[in-house]
Amino acid sequence: MAPRYAPSLWARLPAMALMLEIIFIVLFAFFVETEEFKKTKNQEFLYLYANFQDVHVIVFLGFGFMSMFLVRYGFSGTGFGLLVAAMVVQWATFINAFLSSFHSSHFKWPVQINLNRQGHACVVMQRKDLFASDFQKIQHVVVTLVNAELCAASALVAMGAVHGKTNPAQLLLLGLLEVTGLVVNQGLIKKLFKNDTFNTTMQLHVFGALFGVMTSWVLYRSEAEPRHEKEKFDSKTGLFSTLGMLLLWMFWPSINFVQAQEIRIMYSTYLSLAVSAVTAMALSVLLSPKGKINLVHVQGAALAGGVAIGAIRTVLDPWVAMVIGMCATLLSTLGFRYMKDHMLFAFECHDTCGVLSVHAIPGILGWFADLFLQLVNIDDATIAIRFAVHYICILLISVSMSLVTGTITGFLLKLKFWKPQQDRKCFDDQAFWEFPHLAVHN
Amino acid sequence: MAPRYAPSLWARLPAMALMLEIIFIVLFAFFVETEEFKKTKNQEFLYLYANFQDVHVIVFLGFGFMSMFLVRYGFSGTGFGLLVAAMVVQWATFINAFLSSFHSSHFKWPVQINLNRQGHACVVMQRKDLFASDFQKIQHVVVTLVNAELCAASALVAMGAVHGKTNPAQLLLLGLLEVTGLVVNQGLIKKLFKNDTFNTTMQLHVFGALFGVMTSWVLYRSEAEPRHEKEKFDSKTGLFSTLGMLLLWMFWPSINFVQAQEIRIMYSTYLSLAVSAVTAMALSVLLSPKGKINLVHVQGAALAGGVAIGAIRTVLDPWVAMVIGMCATLLSTLGFRYMKDHMLFAFECHDTCGVLSVHAIPGILGWFADLFLQLVNIDDATIAIRFAVHYICILLISVSMSLVTGTITGFLLKLKFWKPQQDRKCFDDQAFWEFPHLAVHN
Amino acid sequence: MAPRYAPSLWARLPAMALMLEIIFIVLFAFFVETEEFKKTKNQEFLYLYANFQDVHVIVFLGFGFMSMFLVRYGFSGTGFGLLVAAMVVQWATFINAFLSSFHSSHFKWPVQINLNRQGHACVVMQRKDLFASDFQKIQHVVVTLVNAELCAASALVAMGAVHGKTNPAQLLLLGLLEVTGLVVNQGLIKKLFKNDTFNTTMQLHVFGALFGVMTSWVLYRSEAEPRHEKEKFDSKTGLFSTLGMLLLWMFWPSINFVQAQEIRIMYSTYLSLAVSAVTAMALSVLLSPKGKINLVHVQGAALAGGVAIGAIRTVLDPWVAMVIGMCATLLSTLGFRYMKDHMLFAFECHDTCGVLSVHAIPGILGWFADLFLQLVNIDDATIAIRFAVHYICILLISVSMSLVTGTITGFLLKLKFWKPQQDRKCFDDQAFWEFPHLAVHN
Repeated sequence: MAPRYAPSLWARLPAMALMLEIIFIVLFAFFVETEEFKKTKNQEFLYLYANFQDVHVIVFLGFGFMSMFLVRYGFSGTGFGLLVAAMVVQWATFINAFLSSFHSSHFKWPVQINLNRQGHACVVMQRKDLFASDFQKIQHVVVTLVNAELCAASALVAMGAVHGKTNPAQLLLLGLLEVTGLVVNQGLIKKLFKNDTFNTTMQLHVFGALFGVMTSWVLYRSEAEPRHEKEKFDSKTGLFSTLGMLLLWMFWPSINFVQAQEIRIMYSTYLSLAVSAVTAMALSVLLSPKGKINLVHVQGAALAGGVAIGAIRTVLDPWVAMVIGMCATLLSTLGFRYMKDHMLFAFECHDTCGVLSVHAIPGILGWFADLFLQLVNIDDATIAIRFAVHYICILLISVSMSLVTGTITGFLLKLKFWKPQQDRKCFDDQAFWEFPHLAVHN
Repeated sequence: MAPRYAPSLWARLPAMALMLEIIFIVLFAFFVETEEFKKTKNQEFLYLYANFQDVHVIVFLGFGFMSMFLVRYGFSGTGFGLLVAAMVVQWATFINAFLSSFHSSHFKWPVQINLNRQGHACVVMQRKDLFASDFQKIQHVVVTLVNAELCAASALVAMGAVHGKTNPAQLLLLGLLEVTGLVVNQGLIKKLFKNDTFNTTMQLHVFGALFGVMTSWVLYRSEAEPRHEKEKFDSKTGLFSTLGMLLLWMFWPSINFVQAQEIRIMYSTYLSLAVSAVTAMALSVLLSPKGKINLVHVQGAALAGGVAIGAIRTVLDPWVAMVIGMCATLLSTLGFRYMKDHMLFAFECHDTCGVLSVHAIPGILGWFADLFLQLVNIDDATIAIRFAVHYICILLISVSMSLVTGTITGFLLKLKFWKPQQDRKCFDDQAFWEFPHLAVHN
Repeated sequence: MAPRYAPSLWARLPAMALMLEIIFIVLFAFFVETEEFKKTKNQEFLYLYANFQDVHVIVFLGFGFMSMFLVRYGFSGTGFGLLVAAMVVQWATFINAFLSSFHSSHFKWPVQINLNRQGHACVVMQRKDLFASDFQKIQHVVVTLVNAELCAASALVAMGAVHGKTNPAQLLLLGLLEVTGLVVNQGLIKKLFKNDTFNTTMQLHVFGALFGVMTSWVLYRSEAEPRHEKEKFDSKTGLFSTLGMLLLWMFWPSINFVQAQEIRIMYSTYLSLAVSAVTAMALSVLLSPKGKINLVHVQGAALAGGVAIGAIRTVLDPWVAMVIGMCATLLSTLGFRYMKDHMLFAFECHDTCGVLSVHAIPGILGWFADLFLQLVNIDDATIAIRFAVHYICILLISVSMSLVTGTITGFLLKLKFWKPQQDRKCFDDQAFWEFPHLAVHN
């Protein structure tokens, strides 16, 4: 094949995707079964199901369409989003449950490393093996599904930073590694701090965004001009990404609710998002030399309020939620206007969808707001300090974990083995999709 | 700045939006708190939440995308819809609750004007001030949210008449004034007639549509040619507005349900809308000289059935709902074909989205249908007449109120202070948005 | 009118649609009433309502937008989908309930054919006529609505095969006949096998798809070149159809759930669809000579898993659902790549949206998978054989019924009376819609 064409996906994607699917089917055959419902539980299920559907829309429709603002990247934005998310929910279902049974007392590794009396490590083969009857199969309940979808959301956030510069095989690997890192990080924090922070925004957004940015940094293509000619939006793709953004904006209260299972967080998120939307538009005008609104900035910054509230587990007064939404939007807009280019020129780190401004910064802001709100209620200085240290440690561990795993993933994806597209073919559907006017559905 | 560019938004929008946000935050800090839920109430909440989400989709996605049929107005249609609705829900939350506590006995104005014995008015300072402990804070429950969203829907209807001829600062003001008028009108009717008609279509659609049309009449730009060159749709924007219209069409049963809290109205609305959609298409062909379907007419008229049913509080037989849907669509289609141009040429009143045909006429039809259906069941002539007078008075008060407040708003918006765009820049995103091919998200 | 224009819709559509509407209103006036709800039933209703909304979105938004991939067929794809579905839900409500009261003991035909003693048939006029007081009116409950929407889905599947080659009056007739055939077939199977298979995919998808393909076969236009110049997609319509496909993909678990009322089928469908999406993309690359993804193939094949699971009434282990999803996608992709063109050249049968690959093949696969899974649990060979015969008979009856009714419908639609568009005007909105740049909404 002449080098002027993008390398064919033929060589990598099908083998990888089908092989993984077969592995997943085998894992599910051994480890996953569907819970049997009693009639009385149906009601409870159907509550959760409506919420689950909101999350489902966010993950599969919202993120996909929002990442579609690039002028020639529509098919890839939605298509690869679907591919990665569909794969990740399967993997996350398995790994989440595996790790949680690892924490519970029921589980024993079939192979254990014990320290023997002489202080030497020796491998002890357990008689009871992995598939023994007392090993509880993963119950595939709706909560599992919601958790899997939240993991997929995190993977899609990470993908946002590398969109257009990677092929789908690379994106698949990135998604699976990101989720693995995320779940391991959660397990680690749970073990160290007896603290179940899994479903907070901290994990979801901050981990995903920093992971993605690091990967993008390693993958930086120095030959590419500062701004790729196809890295822009037009009025058509702008409208599709507005659709995606509005879906995220509307259903964000649901995604925060399923994490917290506390109804009042819905109100907080709702108000915070309303303030965010207004503030984002006002700030976009204010920071623009011509006094015009930048669509992409507004789309990102209007979500910042929802991300920030997601990190907070304290019950908020409405006005506090509004203030947090305003601050998150302010930081996010500033990030878009000034930090993104700075990151590109100073650190050679290109962040396609601006995930750092949309997800990482508001997430960290929310985390500190939560800390501050909790400290206000604590009188004893010692407890307060211990509390603060506790919070900051969790943040540091998560951040380091995401930076390290993101960097490793970046180097893995940089291997020639993956046959990424040429610089000219970045941000372009034509590298991967049979194109309409040439060969139509036949 | 050279006069050939649209005036920058810089001078008005950010200051106005941010100032309002800060005022809202202060108001919320003093007056709004989030209800504490008992576990047993969670279920009840989650029912309502699913319905609330349908309304949410209608307000933020449906109206936004439906108003997007104009060929170069896509970003503004959705973006300014989001801006105004996000602002209005905050203001409506506050003002709704404020007025309802004004009606309840708990509330006393801190400052009261009393007539003293000599007949002179004297201002009496109440000792108990506004923030006293026995002043009940507004409980920010889900019903409040639903009501706020319905108010936002009304504001968006009003905006439909002036789309493309105003800048976002003007739209913001229009939204806030419309909602204030709407809520005051409701308070007035409640006081006069001991009749809680707030959430019926009468208020929502008729008030909004007439308000918008009056504003548009005052704002009429005589220099503009009869039809602006950008006031047309193309196949892309037509499809986006189809998406918006279908969302409204599908979720309309929910919006009528949350108003009536009567399940059978869902069925009525559903059937009425089904008949509306078929009739709208048939009539559009019938009234077209070439026998072709007009997309914009069909989109508006297919919703007329839902609007009309929303004004009816009697329980309907299915076939009656279908007949009402058919009549509403007939009137709405005739309004689109003949009245819109007549309004423009005879009264110099330009109605961008045809809100008069979609919202006002079907709403008034529904109101009279309701009256008629109630009269059928009344035997006593005296009671029937009193009933009819009662209904017609409410209609007249609402109509006058909307005409007056709409006209006042129009004159306020006509002030040079707001720096509206030039005629050439009407119906055009470029006046307000940084444009793709020039400066991209950076 | 000059022959170079498509025949005007004026002559047929309005009369037909309005007449049908009036007939429906009369039928509803006599036979349909709305159930009165007790307060205690509200909860139950609201569960179902959320599910109903998912089906509603699939039928009116999903199918419409998915059939919109053709480059100049966007308005027609969504508009005629709305027209036919809105009509069909009314007709299906009536005919479903009519047939089910036909089965129940309450109902007696006013005119009955009895065999008298001499063995001659004689018509006996029943005294009790159709509208007698003991004839139970159809209760218009939410289950009725869901069933009506499922019938509409089936009609939309059938429409998929003839899109672009028929005018809306023909599509209306096709929709009504398809639903009649579907409901009669269900009645027949119920009568013969005492087996209520109505709501399974077998009926919904296989019947619809085969019906549509047969109609399309009869309507084949031999003069048209093998591939019509407008039968292709572009990046804009591709994105809209991606939106439609994602809506179907996301809400498919709900459509399978409302049919089975068994929660575990939701999980099965969810997993099956996830595997489908990944497999579809991998196979599309694998079967493409250039190693690129074909958007239309992927969109169809990614849904195959959901269709297959819908035909299964056994409770599935998760891994079995995943395997079925994989197999269904494999067959569906092969069907798209090889069978569609073969059908066109060998049998002169043109299937616009590839419904054979998306709906018929996965549906039949699911049916056999269900049979196989049931046979595995049966020990007794005699029962097993009887069971298998039973299953295969139901399949054969449904298939024959759909082929026969589809062919008859095709011949009915071929009549010159319907004034179909010329070959040049196939797959083109301009034949039916007032076009933007010529005459705008006025």
